[in-house]
Amino acid sequence: MSELRKDPATGRWIITGTRTESDFFDMLNNPKPIATEECFFCEGNEHLTLPEIYAVRNPGTARNGSGWQIRVVPSKSAVFTSDEQLVKIGYGIYDWMKNIGAHELIIETPQHIKNICDLSYDQITSILQVYKERMADLARDERFKYCLIFKNQRPKSPIRYGHAHSQLVALPFIPKLIKDEFSAAREYFSYKERCVYCDIVRQEQKERKRIVEENGDYISFVPYAAKFAFELCIIPKNHNSDYSKESAVSIANLANILKISLQKISRVLNDPPLSYVLHTAPYPRLVHGSWLTIEKDYHWHIEIYPQVSEIMGFELGSGVHIQPLLPEICAKMLKEAK
Amino acid sequence: MSELRKDPATGRWIITGTRTESDFFDMLNNPKPIATEECFFCEGNEHLTLPEIYAVRNPGTARNGSGWQIRVVPSKSAVFTSDEQLVKIGYGIYDWMKNIGAHELIIETPQHIKNICDLSYDQITSILQVYKERMADLARDERFKYCLIFKNQRPKSPIRYGHAHSQLVALPFIPKLIKDEFSAAREYFSYKERCVYCDIVRQEQKERKRIVEENGDYISFVPYAAKFAFELCIIPKNHNSDYSKESAVSIANLANILKISLQKISRVLNDPPLSYVLHTAPYPRLVHGSWLTIEKDYHWHIEIYPQVSEIMGFELGSGVHIQPLLPEICAKMLKEAK
Repeated sequence: MSELRKDPATGRWIITGTRTESDFFDMLNNPKPIATEECFFCEGNEHLTLPEIYAVRNPGTARNGSGWQIRVVPSKSAVFTSDEQLVKIGYGIYDWMKNIGAHELIIETPQHIKNICDLSYDQITSILQVYKERMADLARDERFKYCLIFKNQRPKSPIRYGHAHSQLVALPFIPKLIKDEFSAAREYFSYKERCVYCDIVRQEQKERKRIVEENGDYISFVPYAAKFAFELCIIPKNHNSDYSKESAVSIANLANILKISLQKISRVLNDPPLSYVLHTAPYPRLVHGSWLTIEKDYHWHIEIYPQVSEIMGFELGSGVHIQPLLPEICAKMLKEAK
Repeated sequence: MSELRKDPATGRWIITGTRTESDFFDMLNNPKPIATEECFFCEGNEHLTLPEIYAVRNPGTARNGSGWQIRVVPSKSAVFTSDEQLVKIGYGIYDWMKNIGAHELIIETPQHIKNICDLSYDQITSILQVYKERMADLARDERFKYCLIFKNQRPKSPIRYGHAHSQLVALPFIPKLIKDEFSAAREYFSYKERCVYCDIVRQEQKERKRIVEENGDYISFVPYAAKFAFELCIIPKNHNSDYSKESAVSIANLANILKISLQKISRVLNDPPLSYVLHTAPYPRLVHGSWLTIEKDYHWHIEIYPQVSEIMGFELGSGVHIQPLLPEICAKMLKEAK
């Protein structure tokens, strides 16, 4: 049974106990799934997943059958339970919480397509719309403070993990990295009376050295202090702290720039493994008095991390990344990629 | 030419521009060094490294020749320059610094031994003593604010990267993760009037569920909220913020517990790749008025991270680690390992 634990020396929560000893060593000794195993996510294999939570379906088709465009199912991994009361206990100086949370898989296509950027604009627009729907639905659960949507894309993985999907995790605490972004944004705002992300957008638009793609609502750029080579940030040009408040028109524009950005990364780095994360405001009711501040200070965005280097001792122990290629070089190569 | 850049949205410094475009793609397409390449670090190959900065040598032997026990040489990688003035520039909202710093390799043995835990106690004691010497020497450079010592151990690497060595990086800023530890320790102290690490030591000694090894001066334990399976923390039982103030007797005791801890990890996980980092106080003169606080609040320690799982989107995007095995299970297995 998994648990949430907080490190008193850093204030970071972790999730632990998701596997038994024998599971863990099985996984360690046989890390790769069997290449011939059937794909859990393909149309026709709906019985291989847990029952669906939500789906975009063709009219007249039945739940958990075929005839869908996007399907959301609970993850089978034992990271969270959702049926229990949120229990919080202190053991001496240590803080413990029951493993309350949600972990959902958003299956992005009924076909066995690996790369989200190979889907149509319309399909990607629907996926980004599903992100909104699921965030809003889970907001009704008073135990959750934050909803993180992310994707791990492994185009060279064996069949079972290759099928395009995103993941959603709803948590009873705000993750440390996100809290750090809120604090930095708040500090900046209190000094300058401006949103730091709005200032970044303005400076990138003025310098035009790191912008890779731009449309009516968004820019996609290599951050000035990117942590990874060919990292991209996609951000709305207009201030908005909360992804779930974007209009349908804006979401369609986001689909457009996300598709192009990922296509360019695939082209330059020959279809690398990558991850992206959507950083947005926490669920509002739980931020008490400071909600108004977050709305002004913070600005949602997507961070895309191509995985082209190992994270080793220096990065793990200092939080300082060594990013080999100057961001301006990365931006130029991505911009020029067809 | 590399640079230091700060992300205004998180306050994190990164190091970038360490490679050219063609270097980067060469490395990406041929990540492994040639297996037959000569080891740069073996006795007799002193000409393959840059000239030595420091060495523990047999009496009468010449610099940069054979006859040494431990050798410290500058890294050949172009991460830092050390010959220049520290220049700091703001570009609009972005902060930039010249790549001032030191990056040294501490070659731990003249023989081609891969695993530091296979060296003798006396040899490990000397290595830990060299850490002190190098830290103290670099402290004289007023440009440096922090000195981080770490090790990446890859026992299954091809010959060139296999030879046991540690690395030292001196930086003109305090890394974000270390700053976070200082802040958390200060917050705890200001609330409780006690060092959080001293409290952790006391609670671990009382519970005895996560301690793997103990001697007169140190405990080695799996942290309550470990980020990685079989992670260990080695910490002095007596309060001390600054590694370089440990006595020769204490350093010998540290060598003892470090050797045993690493041997146990090797046994349980079959010689895994691992990293360790030494977290200590920053160079005192540079913390101005708050130095006295750090001395009381903070407590140096070594964190050992076996690398048995990939760091993917969820961890990168949230800072929340999913650590599959309960720390108490890891501690039990390590404790019982011969």
